[in-house]
Amino acid sequence: MTYSAPVDEQRFVLTHIARIGEIGADPRFSAASEDMVDAIVEGAAAFAEGEYAPLLRSGDTVGARWDNGVVTMPEGFRAAYRAFVDNGWGTLAGPVAFGGQGLPFSLATVVMEDLGTANMGFSLVNMLTPGAIESLVAHGNPQQQATWLPRLITGEWPGTMNLTEPQAGSDVGAIRTTATQAPDGTWRVKGQKIFITFGEHDLADNIVHLVLARTPGAPQGTKGLSLFLVPKYRLDEAGEPGVLNDVHCVSIEHKLGIHASPTCVMSYGDNNDCVGELVGPEGTGIRAMFTMMNNARINVGNQGVQVAERATQLAIAYARDRIQSPSADGSSGKASVAIIEHPDVRRMLLRMKAQTQAARALLYYAAGQVDRAHMGDAAAKARVDLVTPLVKAHGTDIGCEVASLGVQVHGGMGFIEETGAAQHYRDARITPIYEGTNGIQAADLVGRKLTGDGGAALRALVADIRAEISEEITLATLADAVEQIAAWMLNEAGVNDRLAGSSPFLTMLATLTCGWLMARQAGVAAALMVKGEGNPAFLKSKIAAARFHLDQIVPEATGLKSAALAGAAPLYALTAGELAA
Amino acid sequence: MTYSAPVDEQRFVLTHIARIGEIGADPRFSAASEDMVDAIVEGAAAFAEGEYAPLLRSGDTVGARWDNGVVTMPEGFRAAYRAFVDNGWGTLAGPVAFGGQGLPFSLATVVMEDLGTANMGFSLVNMLTPGAIESLVAHGNPQQQATWLPRLITGEWPGTMNLTEPQAGSDVGAIRTTATQAPDGTWRVKGQKIFITFGEHDLADNIVHLVLARTPGAPQGTKGLSLFLVPKYRLDEAGEPGVLNDVHCVSIEHKLGIHASPTCVMSYGDNNDCVGELVGPEGTGIRAMFTMMNNARINVGNQGVQVAERATQLAIAYARDRIQSPSADGSSGKASVAIIEHPDVRRMLLRMKAQTQAARALLYYAAGQVDRAHMGDAAAKARVDLVTPLVKAHGTDIGCEVASLGVQVHGGMGFIEETGAAQHYRDARITPIYEGTNGIQAADLVGRKLTGDGGAALRALVADIRAEISEEITLATLADAVEQIAAWMLNEAGVNDRLAGSSPFLTMLATLTCGWLMARQAGVAAALMVKGEGNPAFLKSKIAAARFHLDQIVPEATGLKSAALAGAAPLYALTAGELAA
Repeated sequence: MTYSAPVDEQRFVLTHIARIGEIGADPRFSAASEDMVDAIVEGAAAFAEGEYAPLLRSGDTVGARWDNGVVTMPEGFRAAYRAFVDNGWGTLAGPVAFGGQGLPFSLATVVMEDLGTANMGFSLVNMLTPGAIESLVAHGNPQQQATWLPRLITGEWPGTMNLTEPQAGSDVGAIRTTATQAPDGTWRVKGQKIFITFGEHDLADNIVHLVLARTPGAPQGTKGLSLFLVPKYRLDEAGEPGVLNDVHCVSIEHKLGIHASPTCVMSYGDNNDCVGELVGPEGTGIRAMFTMMNNARINVGNQGVQVAERATQLAIAYARDRIQSPSADGSSGKASVAIIEHPDVRRMLLRMKAQTQAARALLYYAAGQVDRAHMGDAAAKARVDLVTPLVKAHGTDIGCEVASLGVQVHGGMGFIEETGAAQHYRDARITPIYEGTNGIQAADLVGRKLTGDGGAALRALVADIRAEISEEITLATLADAVEQIAAWMLNEAGVNDRLAGSSPFLTMLATLTCGWLMARQAGVAAALMVKGEGNPAFLKSKIAAARFHLDQIVPEATGLKSAALAGAAPLYALTAGELAA
Repeated sequence: MTYSAPVDEQRFVLTHIARIGEIGADPRFSAASEDMVDAIVEGAAAFAEGEYAPLLRSGDTVGARWDNGVVTMPEGFRAAYRAFVDNGWGTLAGPVAFGGQGLPFSLATVVMEDLGTANMGFSLVNMLTPGAIESLVAHGNPQQQATWLPRLITGEWPGTMNLTEPQAGSDVGAIRTTATQAPDGTWRVKGQKIFITFGEHDLADNIVHLVLARTPGAPQGTKGLSLFLVPKYRLDEAGEPGVLNDVHCVSIEHKLGIHASPTCVMSYGDNNDCVGELVGPEGTGIRAMFTMMNNARINVGNQGVQVAERATQLAIAYARDRIQSPSADGSSGKASVAIIEHPDVRRMLLRMKAQTQAARALLYYAAGQVDRAHMGDAAAKARVDLVTPLVKAHGTDIGCEVASLGVQVHGGMGFIEETGAAQHYRDARITPIYEGTNGIQAADLVGRKLTGDGGAALRALVADIRAEISEEITLATLADAVEQIAAWMLNEAGVNDRLAGSSPFLTMLATLTCGWLMARQAGVAAALMVKGEGNPAFLKSKIAAARFHLDQIVPEATGLKSAALAGAAPLYALTAGELAA
């Protein structure tokens, strides 16, 4: 089954959710003309369909292979990656000063969506590099920027993020990797990192590792961390890859999914000769890490959309093809019909469509706010901070749910690997985990993002929502519940109470936000139909998906209210030992 | 991580949910004395822990292998299966006249639970045989019963169920396999079956296939189906396996999970010499199929419990072990704590426990009703019919949910196959599909089971629930919603409207039933604690899990009311083509 990028849908959310027109009107993003937007939406679709999508199965069945420190990608991957670089897809959002096109993040989001829907595992190589670019832009010195940014921006040298160590996962402050300064002022990095995505591969001529490490005498915890740039190959005098640095890939993991993405154990400085450059002042590594993670969390939420889109396309195609049983209402007589005609299969498919569109709307809304923040809009910056955990956690929850429904629609065939539905189910399962587990996202939401500003950002969001949804009773009910919970969390709940309710609260707030954006789209679609504008089939489908979300999914989220308000006491009624008994 | 059977829990649900004491008091089940119950609970635990559990990983990583028609199980499987036969575990619920022990299904449920928690894929070989036994008991002639039942009951010759063909999955009536009578009165079966669990393997000296096929001149659809017994080896004059029959395994599937269970494409009569025996009169195959499926659906619900139990044990062990970050409330100072101490991890674990126990309560409740039906209780028979789709669908939904939470609790390690959490996530995914997809279960619930008797069985169940739960407000609210939906389905909704709401309605009714049984257990546990009886740690844990279910999970189910009542119109707002657009 070939994949077809949802270009009508992408244009629609760019226009009405990200409101790309407003963004393109800003001098900073003047390159984002309507023609440019069209060219990118169409071009990225064609590129992803043509180059990345055909490699989906071999990425899974062959996958990245490790042999004696060398990681080899399946046939065709190197050429496809080369085409990505040559076509300039990496340069979209990069700064113009270093070869980028300075286009909005909203448009880079389209490209990431298409690449990942075509081939999620493979597209991780494209997803990590922007974090490296952002941290160098924010924290690198002019020489570092001049040296590394142009090749990172083209993608010629992809970047990696090296945070996790065996004892330091969610607890970044527990990192033990060290960096010591040599007499010549350069640094030597030493330590082992795990779960390094595309830490080693044969797609490119160099790899730029950004590594969190601890300098001598640095304080314990996150305050003692600094960021280092460690190239796979040190550069020669001409600035080209020269001597191999003292860094190597010890092994790659045997994973449930995303087999096209080598997840590496990386060893730095086995021979005490791993040369790195300090990025930013000593002790500011954690700040740099948050820069790297900035849009990375939104990009992982994008993966939820990607896998949901692909799983939905696959399931709909199967359900139209598979003939089984006459219609229950007798309308087909004794003739069997395609299973898409059976009500419960319909329900699953429409739910898949509605959830996918909801997650996409949330994603592009966040992306639009990122661009507005770059335009200097302080309220947009606060909004980005608030919705980032929603995009990441709810987007990936939806990815998993939709991929699972996709298996179900296929019946017994869904459990057979060759069908392809199972791959999405496996691939999706990493997304609620990496880049901060969804539990960490929920903690971030009720901690820093809610109590950090006394609830101001949340109140502003709910006010925006209420201003636009007066006719949607299910949304108003959910908004009431969200406000009640937020007030309880701010005024009455202790820290553990907030955390106990954090995950259900996140789902509620995210669903409220999605519902708002779906309601807006339904309104726009209805208005366009009245005016006789737009593609009527698309608009009709949009309205049906939005109504399903508002009438059936939104009330489910309201059902989480009791859990959000339950507090920590029920969770600590048992000791850890009693829980295990 | 070794598996430890939940014997305290099993005794508790046998006593207070299945009410095994009442069953053992009936003359039919007089063998089920208290001592016998204890011996089975303890013995099955030890057997499963000792023989089946150690083969869990090799079942997944090596799996069943096909070569030129021969299916070879991994090392150790044949010996473990032999031990199952030799220890008489297969004989528990079989009729005494043919070597069975005539014990209640409730106790066979304990054995199935333990085998499957130890090794779900492997235990399928034990799960299919009872269906073959039941159909021969119900429909076989005396000679067939004398010939086949004793060896089926010991498990010496396992049984299979052959329904599905490429064009006939949920639509059983589309079966094309034929059976024609030879001049000597025997039958020749010809056709291809797919998705045949343990259709071929090296665990036993013979295999007894029960095959649905169409006889010459039979009407179209299910009325034209007859049931045939087709042995892998025909029996010689001494009644021992002799000549190989004309049946062979063409291939096995490459599946997402349960790799220890060979899923076979079976070919019957390639050389027109596949000898079969007609079981029951011609044209009664569909009735025999329902007999085979009778408890099979309950046994698949049991698999939901199994995978949930195993995933929960694994996750709790990991969460007690894994140290990461200090407590958010400052109670541990700067010292990092085991992640089980963090609120959101607690929430996931307690949810896993509560859902597992809820599914188990529903399972043993149904099993107890099966036994009462065998004791001649007509109301129990109606209750079994009503709750079977709940056990199957809700039990397996819970299995998938809990297995997914299990991956999440492990963080990044959950995505690494060697951890084992991913296997449960993969294995669980088949259970909502086979033995009638959960959509088919939901259709059965709102069709045959609800409208078939004008809602009488449902009203009786809700009345029993209401009589016992007066203090539980969340349950009463859910019961109100269930009754409202049922009344709408019975009095106002069309067939497609009912089907459109069938899945959410099933979840609601199942959760209501689970909540009732959890509330009962909490009440019993509290009373025992007051009296100073029982294991206080177990009772305390039971109360905490029950409260979590009643206070947090039950309200979620009430949130599905809008979806259950939405009707079919929203699903058919789009044509199939528009849905795909």
